[in-house]
Amino acid sequence: MNTKPIIGITMGDPAGIGAEIVVKALSNEKYYHRAAPVVLGDKERLQQSLKFVEQPLKVRAIEDLSEAKFKYGVIDVLESDIPGISDVTYGQVSAVAGKSAVAYVFKAIELAQAQKIAAIVTGPLNKEAIHLAGYNQYSGHTEIFAEKTNTSDYAMMLAVNDLYVIHVSTHCSLRQACDKATKSRIKKVIDLANEVVKTYSISNPLIAVAGLNPHSGEGGAFGTEEIEQIIPAIEESLAKGMKVMGPVPPDSLFVRAKKGEYQVMIVMYHDQGHIPVKVIGFDEGINTSIGLPIIRTSVDHGTAFEIAGKGIASAASMEAALNLAIDLAVNKERKE
Amino acid sequence: MNTKPIIGITMGDPAGIGAEIVVKALSNEKYYHRAAPVVLGDKERLQQSLKFVEQPLKVRAIEDLSEAKFKYGVIDVLESDIPGISDVTYGQVSAVAGKSAVAYVFKAIELAQAQKIAAIVTGPLNKEAIHLAGYNQYSGHTEIFAEKTNTSDYAMMLAVNDLYVIHVSTHCSLRQACDKATKSRIKKVIDLANEVVKTYSISNPLIAVAGLNPHSGEGGAFGTEEIEQIIPAIEESLAKGMKVMGPVPPDSLFVRAKKGEYQVMIVMYHDQGHIPVKVIGFDEGINTSIGLPIIRTSVDHGTAFEIAGKGIASAASMEAALNLAIDLAVNKERKE
Repeated sequence: MNTKPIIGITMGDPAGIGAEIVVKALSNEKYYHRAAPVVLGDKERLQQSLKFVEQPLKVRAIEDLSEAKFKYGVIDVLESDIPGISDVTYGQVSAVAGKSAVAYVFKAIELAQAQKIAAIVTGPLNKEAIHLAGYNQYSGHTEIFAEKTNTSDYAMMLAVNDLYVIHVSTHCSLRQACDKATKSRIKKVIDLANEVVKTYSISNPLIAVAGLNPHSGEGGAFGTEEIEQIIPAIEESLAKGMKVMGPVPPDSLFVRAKKGEYQVMIVMYHDQGHIPVKVIGFDEGINTSIGLPIIRTSVDHGTAFEIAGKGIASAASMEAALNLAIDLAVNKERKE
Repeated sequence: MNTKPIIGITMGDPAGIGAEIVVKALSNEKYYHRAAPVVLGDKERLQQSLKFVEQPLKVRAIEDLSEAKFKYGVIDVLESDIPGISDVTYGQVSAVAGKSAVAYVFKAIELAQAQKIAAIVTGPLNKEAIHLAGYNQYSGHTEIFAEKTNTSDYAMMLAVNDLYVIHVSTHCSLRQACDKATKSRIKKVIDLANEVVKTYSISNPLIAVAGLNPHSGEGGAFGTEEIEQIIPAIEESLAKGMKVMGPVPPDSLFVRAKKGEYQVMIVMYHDQGHIPVKVIGFDEGINTSIGLPIIRTSVDHGTAFEIAGKGIASAASMEAALNLAIDLAVNKERKE
């Protein structure tokens, strides 16, 4: 009987590199030692990627999770049977591929909510394909998870090299990002960061909050959001006993983290976090939604249509996401 | 007779690490092989820093540049004789220190305009001290150089590891930076970047222009500045025959530069450039103003009051700035 945490891995858009990086990751026996992986995806796509690994793997379709054997060498896959899936061409945006990709995620969430899987690792989606499939309300995984779990306070977190970067806002214009840097949102994100410190067993619990403006506004000379929103949010969180500091000038934030001053950072907008994370370690980064009732980690890259089906995709980010999901699932089990 | 380019090095704020990093840099004989360095600063401060280098150096005050010997071992210093300078305390903001620091820069500009020195390397200023000294119109070196040389189209450039990062805007709020990303300003900065390619003998002449918004606005979904300002600026510059590309998503800009796609980048706001430059190489970066009629390079750090007078400051950025100033002066001489 399986006693390891079951990890559901969604294959992502069938026209992208998802299947390839899933197979490459699962060609590594160590994941089966620590966890029980099952793929939500398409058997045929996964089989096509077997040629990109040296190990003699097989793919086995299952109808129900109870049939999964979680045995290294045979990849268990729960299919979604979207008509037309076998006609999907690598590198091409299509409604069928978008519909399939979303179906894998829906299925994974359903299993997680039924406590049948312990964590979800998501492969890359294509936004255009999702919209073609009729899911205009989603711009990515985060909205799907938020909707299906009725969550309103969540945030995107990137993690690389033991640094954790939590975003106050993400996919909006820079002007909108300035508007979204409000005291109430920042306080909520500090609360989420505090949960991250506990959940991830992070050794340094200090949370550093970035400024919005250059030099954190230099006392109001270059913008007032620090004085009006960010500093009050930090002070109210400090008053509640949280370990939080800032605002740290945006261009010093990562330099000081690299020197060991803190591991957990809150950034005010998408690129304030994404620029340094990608400079530090593009391939090994992971992307996760925090504040959700489900453990979910994700690759930190897109579908890479231009190299899909060629065997040259790196599985480093998928492996990092898988490792983190396993760690989180094990930690959570210990606490329960 | 001296035939090497004369480089004027301004000592910066006397209460900061300026004197120390100047002495440390000039303890290296190689700079005297390639150039004729002279310091604009204070003899006593420089002498106090001699204890931080192993070499048996001396400091000699001169009244006029014609007295300079440019000989390794004896640092020539042109003083400015601001009353009270000997009372300046390390690490403390004061009007006297601010006034002195500005005086060194004024003197250097005067000598450069009289063609008596070939380039200027500036040590770090303290903005608060400058303002206390009554120079409220300056927020840093750039404004001083722009005013004294009547220059309106200039830009800040950071350089590190053969990458050149030119800023459309710098010391203003993030909201103002969004307003400043106009087609006309971006076109001017592309022109300035084109001059940089020629002046700096850069092997890859391609200029990459960053987007302003995450994912460069994703076709207008996250902001319209790319569609309305940045793309038209790029297209008009392309039409003039320039080698320019973009908008590149801000979080891919540096990753692609590191892979060798381009060396010269235009960024839309202070932190879009400063965050990745500081992550890549905080100590070795240099900061220069482009578009000025005078060659000027600068350290990429502040006065570091907290470590001033302690002997622990790194001269790496000063040395990088000095090297670049010498290269630029030699290149310019060759062309003339």
